[in-house]
Amino acid sequence: MKADRVWVAALLVIGDEILSGRTEDKNIAQVARWLNSQGIRLQEVRVVPDVADAIVAAVNGLRSAYDYVITTGGIGPTHDDITVDSIAAAFGVPVITHPQARAILEKYYRDRGLEFTEARLRMARVPEGAELIPNPTSGAPGVKMANVYILAGVPNIAAAMLQGLEGKLQGGRPMASATVSAHAAESEVAALLKQVQDEYPGVSIGSYPFYRDGGFGADFVVRSEDDALANRCASELRRRLKSARVEVIEGD
Amino acid sequence: MKADRVWVAALLVIGDEILSGRTEDKNIAQVARWLNSQGIRLQEVRVVPDVADAIVAAVNGLRSAYDYVITTGGIGPTHDDITVDSIAAAFGVPVITHPQARAILEKYYRDRGLEFTEARLRMARVPEGAELIPNPTSGAPGVKMANVYILAGVPNIAAAMLQGLEGKLQGGRPMASATVSAHAAESEVAALLKQVQDEYPGVSIGSYPFYRDGGFGADFVVRSEDDALANRCASELRRRLKSARVEVIEGD
Repeated sequence: MKADRVWVAALLVIGDEILSGRTEDKNIAQVARWLNSQGIRLQEVRVVPDVADAIVAAVNGLRSAYDYVITTGGIGPTHDDITVDSIAAAFGVPVITHPQARAILEKYYRDRGLEFTEARLRMARVPEGAELIPNPTSGAPGVKMANVYILAGVPNIAAAMLQGLEGKLQGGRPMASATVSAHAAESEVAALLKQVQDEYPGVSIGSYPFYRDGGFGADFVVRSEDDALANRCASELRRRLKSARVEVIEGD
Repeated sequence: MKADRVWVAALLVIGDEILSGRTEDKNIAQVARWLNSQGIRLQEVRVVPDVADAIVAAVNGLRSAYDYVITTGGIGPTHDDITVDSIAAAFGVPVITHPQARAILEKYYRDRGLEFTEARLRMARVPEGAELIPNPTSGAPGVKMANVYILAGVPNIAAAMLQGLEGKLQGGRPMASATVSAHAAESEVAALLKQVQDEYPGVSIGSYPFYRDGGFGADFVVRSEDDALANRCASELRRRLKSARVEVIEGD
């Protein structure tokens, strides 16, 4: 298999509500899965508070280290929404009102018989030089500034913006995975797992204990960029676990 | 009110399964809430893969910047569990088998009629100089290395280890919060929120839109280290929202 370039991304989650424990994050998993579907690996996540310095430092650290940075949160109309201003500061550019974003929002509120207030106009603000990310399902567009993609924090709005980005980011192969589950303590099969992984260069095997349907066990996740290789390795692992009299769970 | 020293912490989540989107993180919110109950603010979260260099860099970056660093994940018996080795490397110390951890695990497996294998012994490995964090509900103890607290990734085991740490970390005041909810678009009340926040120094007001029971609305969360101040500010906010004919949701 040709060794393709690997495209890597970081996610920056912006919001006091995550760091206070008030809100459980739902964006990490959905952004991770979406990136993988585009052939891009999520390699780091940071969560920072609604504090400009913290956002600026994180954006500048991440945008130089990764091909893409996705941010979620802090793009609404209220005083605690400071993502756009902070990202403009990170790039050293002013914030402007984007004419197309303004037009989209104006239409959105007019169609609903609502006034286009100062606060609502705030959501048309972008760092100078930014482009819009079309949002197929709701009014507010996301914003692309160089390799930084600014999405909403509300998970279903973030999902709509990801949909708007579908196929637009250059990526490589998605990481394929095959899971083998067993009613076994990880510690009983640790040596076997390592051995199988070592026999299959180009795969990694992760081991994730679970408690489900009243029983303990573990999922062994075989990952590779080569789909066929991941499946071959998973079959071999399944065979070896059975030979070692481990109760493999069928049909996953 | 006397301005107390503010104690701050970072959380480092270690695990490919979070970055692949396979597993939804459950530790950020529980660690955030637990830290706040101990009078410590969670100020940053990072998620890194099961890669030694990434863990070492994150641990060294965070342990110098915050009073406490909590890590979750990567402390099981399998080959992909490299947290202890990576944290030892971050501190420049060797990994040793902790005699007390060994004794705890030995007893745990003996009591269950199970063999104490090489793989299980791996869970007694700690960076030299580390102490144990007692785990009141299961066998494996957590590990404390200077200001770094190494916990399991499985959420209920991490919770047990946090219980073992209860009252042992020096902290200040917990952040108090009071929530006012309303059936209002954020953009309608943005100016009012900002105004009330400005009138109450020492509070911050966060605004979090929701869609629930078939209706849109927003939660306005008033936070302060001064419980009484947070409540006074929330009452005033509620009064002002009602005066502005916003439909405030009672009884939260």
